[in-house]
Amino acid sequence: MSAQINRQFQLAQRPVGAATRDTFAYVETPVGEPGPGQILVKNQYLSLDPAMRGWMNDAKSYIAPVAIGDVMRALGVGKVIASQHPDFKVGDEVNGALGVQDYFLGEPKGFYKVDSQRAPLPLYLSALGMTGMTAYFGFLDVGLPQAGDTVVVSGAAGAVGSVVGQIAKIKGCRVVGIAGGADKCRYLVDELGFDGAIDYKAEDVNAGLKRECPKGVNVFFDNVGGDILDAVLARLAPKARVVICGAISQYNNKEAVRGPANYLSLLVNRARMEGMVVMDYAHRFQEGFKDMATWIAEGKLKSKEDIVEGLETFPETLAKLFSGENFGKLVLKV
Amino acid sequence: MSAQINRQFQLAQRPVGAATRDTFAYVETPVGEPGPGQILVKNQYLSLDPAMRGWMNDAKSYIAPVAIGDVMRALGVGKVIASQHPDFKVGDEVNGALGVQDYFLGEPKGFYKVDSQRAPLPLYLSALGMTGMTAYFGFLDVGLPQAGDTVVVSGAAGAVGSVVGQIAKIKGCRVVGIAGGADKCRYLVDELGFDGAIDYKAEDVNAGLKRECPKGVNVFFDNVGGDILDAVLARLAPKARVVICGAISQYNNKEAVRGPANYLSLLVNRARMEGMVVMDYAHRFQEGFKDMATWIAEGKLKSKEDIVEGLETFPETLAKLFSGENFGKLVLKV
Repeated sequence: MSAQINRQFQLAQRPVGAATRDTFAYVETPVGEPGPGQILVKNQYLSLDPAMRGWMNDAKSYIAPVAIGDVMRALGVGKVIASQHPDFKVGDEVNGALGVQDYFLGEPKGFYKVDSQRAPLPLYLSALGMTGMTAYFGFLDVGLPQAGDTVVVSGAAGAVGSVVGQIAKIKGCRVVGIAGGADKCRYLVDELGFDGAIDYKAEDVNAGLKRECPKGVNVFFDNVGGDILDAVLARLAPKARVVICGAISQYNNKEAVRGPANYLSLLVNRARMEGMVVMDYAHRFQEGFKDMATWIAEGKLKSKEDIVEGLETFPETLAKLFSGENFGKLVLKV
Repeated sequence: MSAQINRQFQLAQRPVGAATRDTFAYVETPVGEPGPGQILVKNQYLSLDPAMRGWMNDAKSYIAPVAIGDVMRALGVGKVIASQHPDFKVGDEVNGALGVQDYFLGEPKGFYKVDSQRAPLPLYLSALGMTGMTAYFGFLDVGLPQAGDTVVVSGAAGAVGSVVGQIAKIKGCRVVGIAGGADKCRYLVDELGFDGAIDYKAEDVNAGLKRECPKGVNVFFDNVGGDILDAVLARLAPKARVVICGAISQYNNKEAVRGPANYLSLLVNRARMEGMVVMDYAHRFQEGFKDMATWIAEGKLKSKEDIVEGLETFPETLAKLFSGENFGKLVLKV
């Protein structure tokens, strides 16, 4: 094993604004061997998520920041190639925080097994992974949808948003997606069965919301923040629920985050805005996996992966998330 | 009756910024007589509330705006002096939207009876009125306090805030009030039994919160908005509840309302921010009245009224609410 090379992207400095290639140090190190309680994993697919930008900040959050010099944190799937841990054996396929590198070596904390015979591995990073669980628990447990509700999703062609919209349809809601570009909007309506779409790059979001949500918005699942959050707040229905899943428009800000000027719509409409972090639902993931797998098997839920090849492209591929270039779940094939 | 004069403040124009004397037309009209289904009330005390500023705006809200030329809306208590309504007789004391005038003439929609033998009439505008119900249902039903929680209240020496803090103490919470001035802060701690106070005029609110809430804030009851909301958001405990009752710092803004820049603290802390409007709880007011009356009788809850005499002072007295001059529930004695 020691002849093999482990390519790593380590956090070199905390970015101001967007992360770039300079944010990371590209390092080649020899692959080690597992000590007691450790496993060695050959990484196969890594999940690229907006949350990664937050992990680079030295700020109190729901999870510790990545330390300078550490391998950049990333969830992923891979195959165990050496093990000194009783629960994992060579050949097992696992899902865990593998990091942006070829090989993970360490204790498999929070790792669990997946099975490429049952579903393609990238699906365990999208609908059957944290992305799917974020959509499932965020929408159902925090959004509290009722059949007939009008549901609006921002970042709707993205990994989480596209799943939220489809779950909303399964639950009998009317679903409107906000996305950038005609292709994405067409995809939402024609492929995923959304009832309507608003192209924020081509039309005024306020006008689009007025057209698509004449009775107001009962549930808003927000990945974006900024102007789009403000526009939807202005159109809430009484007792609406706003799920704050992320704020991708604000993550690369060099100035302070911009708060939603229309927050007093919460008062007028007796509405609620609530944040969610998927790891709070870890004890209930089996419930989510089961429903999601069933819906996929029944053809009610489609998962779209945007797979980019090559670990070496990591910084530039990550940037696609923030420029709105990616389409579906962004996955890096190692 | 027709010889008597009814002094009225009518809405003359929609204010930009603070309401002033010019916002209203002072009019003297003869007092009319009730038609079928109507009552005539001699107004005795009027409730002055921050919400009145919102009613002057021509904007969609939880209640219709006051029309230009209409008597300015105000809740109040008074005595029925003529009646053609089966449920109200001469001598009944009533609570309702009497308006800023000497006499109310019209249908007693939403009016209910009060009893000055049981409690002084101004109390029916404070702890035993909408103010008390706002505190009771907003804090208990939306804030969902648990014994041991750290509760922060803004506008804590005001009508609603002072009651919220006392209910929180009754429920076994640790209570910190934010108010302007040493007198108010002393009053909160020495008279009302708050555990701590932050004088936003004399100290940095962030530092005060750090000192008074070392374990974070579990429930924040906000009447103020602006910088104070932002400061408390930055100090939320996991799963915190933020009750948006009002935003007095923003009501007189000439520019757009400023949104809370730290709203992503809701995400990091899986916290919730929710608006409340007291009228949603009308069907449960008896429950609130009963508890509040019991707590007052037991000496557990104090109600402080700031009574200003003279209907003619209305515009200037109302302004006290926004300058932070008043102390307790602001009531106008007609």
